[in-house]
Amino acid sequence: MASSSIGWHDLPYARTPARLDGSTLIWRDLGPIAGHPALLVSGVRSDNDVMRGEETQVLGVFAGDEPLAQSGETVIILPGTHCKHVWVADRQIQRFETFMTGELFAVLGEHSILRYSVGGAAAGQAFTAQTTEAFRAGVDTAAALPLSAALFKVRTGQVLQNRPADESRAFLSGVLIGSELAHLNAPQNDRLPIVLAAADPLQTAYQTALEALGLSARVKCVSSQAQHLLSARGQAVLLRQIGWI
Amino acid sequence: MASSSIGWHDLPYARTPARLDGSTLIWRDLGPIAGHPALLVSGVRSDNDVMRGEETQVLGVFAGDEPLAQSGETVIILPGTHCKHVWVADRQIQRFETFMTGELFAVLGEHSILRYSVGGAAAGQAFTAQTTEAFRAGVDTAAALPLSAALFKVRTGQVLQNRPADESRAFLSGVLIGSELAHLNAPQNDRLPIVLAAADPLQTAYQTALEALGLSARVKCVSSQAQHLLSARGQAVLLRQIGWI
Repeated sequence: MASSSIGWHDLPYARTPARLDGSTLIWRDLGPIAGHPALLVSGVRSDNDVMRGEETQVLGVFAGDEPLAQSGETVIILPGTHCKHVWVADRQIQRFETFMTGELFAVLGEHSILRYSVGGAAAGQAFTAQTTEAFRAGVDTAAALPLSAALFKVRTGQVLQNRPADESRAFLSGVLIGSELAHLNAPQNDRLPIVLAAADPLQTAYQTALEALGLSARVKCVSSQAQHLLSARGQAVLLRQIGWI
Repeated sequence: MASSSIGWHDLPYARTPARLDGSTLIWRDLGPIAGHPALLVSGVRSDNDVMRGEETQVLGVFAGDEPLAQSGETVIILPGTHCKHVWVADRQIQRFETFMTGELFAVLGEHSILRYSVGGAAAGQAFTAQTTEAFRAGVDTAAALPLSAALFKVRTGQVLQNRPADESRAFLSGVLIGSELAHLNAPQNDRLPIVLAAADPLQTAYQTALEALGLSARVKCVSSQAQHLLSARGQAVLLRQIGWI
């Protein structure tokens, strides 16, 4: 990352709580680079977690005259290699948690015994009726078992039930995403509105899992198109704060 | 495995419940191999899990005139690459669950972003005061967060608190083992006696986690010496059942 200790310039992380108007983020004007003004923006940290870039997307969700979600107490879900859940209240990022969902999917599918079950099916395939059912079975399995036990059911589904590779991949995805989302039903989160900000195919996967967990009524989904503009919307918030626009 | 579909001879799995006297296991006399009698023994399956070899170790726990544990309702923990928890009652293996604890430790330590945090420390090191504390912190973190979020704290502990590599490895181990064992405090298991059958250094790690989870009073630990003889004790049960000894 450009602002990390091994990047262009080491900027300290801003701290939670971080205001949605960007005023508590940390930035540095690098001067013109190749004729263009350049601004380096820090990430945000809590006592025990870090993010770089996702905080700008969260600013983007609530930015402008037509925000993508109403401000108020909300949890924002930003799927990816290291998925972030970000709790927002009082127009501040209050706290966040990182889930290694995407990386676990890749690493287990390539380097663990599960590769013999999921191998051969391409990533990012569109859902079919069969893979949707397998994905939902994965979500259900994650709700019933600790994650390290649920994961082994990828293997036994193939060995005992001859589950095909594309369904095994969907099942693995369902286990990991289901395990990630289950805490949204816990007492401390069970009334919070949820904003899902993901482009397809992750949007469909997360929507399916949220539905299987009975959470659909609380979910507002940022469109794939708006999702691609989230960082730019957030950057505009920051540029306005700095006075560059 | 010798009895698998790609082994010497494809034997079907025996089914749970499986009797501790070995009478419901499935075996095949292969005739003499290199002048020695050879017996092939199947594994055991449930509706959605499989084991090969661990069932013989479980027979070994309860075998002979001096069993290592009293029979009665018990859960046996057999740590390893694919750790098994085996529920025994009425002198039968009633059910079991596989946890990918050991494989997750190896795969994440070698192939995920966590390798930058845990790299450089050798596996299987004896515990020190510092690594014991880090291990316990991992167990506590697993109790507070979903596993895929607890795992990321390996990374942030290094980035934010400069946790050294050997302590990061211990923390990762604590997260994975703590996550595996937490269900033993769930209502359906919270009175069951626990038998831990592991040689060092896993024995120490699991004992430390069980203690951190408040489970010590229910745990009987098979000695490292007896642990190495478990399979032989179980095989003797089976040979007696068959009439070879």
